[in-house]
Amino acid sequence: LIGGSVGLALRHRKLCRRIIGVGRREESLQVARRVGAVDHTTTELEQGVSEAELIVVCSPVMHIAKHVLSAAKLCPAGALITDAGSTKEQILDEIKECWDDARDVQFVGSHPIAGSEKAGPEAARADLFEQRLVVVTPDGTSGTRAVESVEQFWQSLGARTIRRSPANHDRLLAASSHMPHVVASALAACTSNSELPFTGSGWADMTRIAAGDVQLWQQILTENQSHVLQSLDKFMEMLDGFRTAIEAKDKRKLVRLLTAGKKKRDAVGS
Amino acid sequence: LIGGSVGLALRHRKLCRRIIGVGRREESLQVARRVGAVDHTTTELEQGVSEAELIVVCSPVMHIAKHVLSAAKLCPAGALITDAGSTKEQILDEIKECWDDARDVQFVGSHPIAGSEKAGPEAARADLFEQRLVVVTPDGTSGTRAVESVEQFWQSLGARTIRRSPANHDRLLAASSHMPHVVASALAACTSNSELPFTGSGWADMTRIAAGDVQLWQQILTENQSHVLQSLDKFMEMLDGFRTAIEAKDKRKLVRLLTAGKKKRDAVGS
Repeated sequence: LIGGSVGLALRHRKLCRRIIGVGRREESLQVARRVGAVDHTTTELEQGVSEAELIVVCSPVMHIAKHVLSAAKLCPAGALITDAGSTKEQILDEIKECWDDARDVQFVGSHPIAGSEKAGPEAARADLFEQRLVVVTPDGTSGTRAVESVEQFWQSLGARTIRRSPANHDRLLAASSHMPHVVASALAACTSNSELPFTGSGWADMTRIAAGDVQLWQQILTENQSHVLQSLDKFMEMLDGFRTAIEAKDKRKLVRLLTAGKKKRDAVGS
Repeated sequence: LIGGSVGLALRHRKLCRRIIGVGRREESLQVARRVGAVDHTTTELEQGVSEAELIVVCSPVMHIAKHVLSAAKLCPAGALITDAGSTKEQILDEIKECWDDARDVQFVGSHPIAGSEKAGPEAARADLFEQRLVVVTPDGTSGTRAVESVEQFWQSLGARTIRRSPANHDRLLAASSHMPHVVASALAACTSNSELPFTGSGWADMTRIAAGDVQLWQQILTENQSHVLQSLDKFMEMLDGFRTAIEAKDKRKLVRLLTAGKKKRDAVGS
């Protein structure tokens, strides 16, 4: 989804001379060609990156570090590498552990907060990044030029960018995305088959992301474990506050809690 | 929203000779007239129901019983009364306690599972009930003819209907709607201002209903307290299962839980 949308956005905005899609499965690459996301495709990383100026690694989080390191070995000098993973700290640690400082290649992580419960190039959209936020996550060793180039890249696709350290990113995203995914999945899972026919648009909205890729989310939750647990505990404490107010039929407290939720939601808009 | 949409749907489908909107505030009634939801309006219940064949009480849950009882006193013999409240058992208990069996008037409760976080006649839609489920909640004393008439009424607006006892309705809706509202509100409330800019469409979908009317939801949660608490406990137990799996980095268990959530969500469709 992300890789295909990057390709579509680049072509749509005529920002790129040549886009090469690199993938493991010929089927996905065929779809990527058919939807017009890429000019050429290959299953050989070496062939794919041999003349690349910019490499965007859109693999599932558990493969990102490995693919960034391979690409860094095979790409030309002067190339810039970024990724689109939902977790950042552990990936960067793995990359730094094996990074070849002798090569003139740079990596700066990024995370476009865009996407949906759908996956694959068939769901790709040229406008996926428009008005969306991309978190760019330099660490102490990132070159200023490289960080700015990655920011300009996402901005050229219509996104806004913001800089955060990898650890800070992971803490913020645990609260805004990873923990909510657990809540959505738990809500869907605890609804019995006899209750399902009585769900309406509220339940459907709340559980939409629970339809997402199971393996991908298992990886995200495991990689960002400590921050996800912290966020979960904060949520469970809040939920327990609601429970206590309902049990006591404490209308004033319940109104106060519901109002706090409404204010936060209203601040974000539709 | 519900009353206005009933009016619009009736006029749109040419099912009714005359629709009278009864309300407390002249402003809302003005909007109802302007959007074409009603033929006439009045703030006097007596005037509004004096020739009514069917009365649909769309007040907030805490006023429904009172309004049904008043309407039952003032309407002509042979009239049928229903409501659109999200809770059923307590309302029916209050109605039965003061019901005048001597009058030839019938009440059968209903709950259209349709709506949104928006309120008021300006949000009314003629197609609000199309393809949606309406739970009709007869109890032992309801006449068969009256129950069938209420079912036919909602079906004529495009809805499907299903019969459940008031208690059964409240148990099912606690799980499918009332408890999820608490979860959405708690999720919104526990997100700090520094985390809000990093929320995406997942968080926005999950918290949409938290923007709903605070007083209305306080009433629903208090009226349906025992079933809401039961559902909350079931949800918290499920969430605790996810927490344990994440803490232990138990990938197999986490995949099993995420898959259970995905299956339930996939069963409902988009």
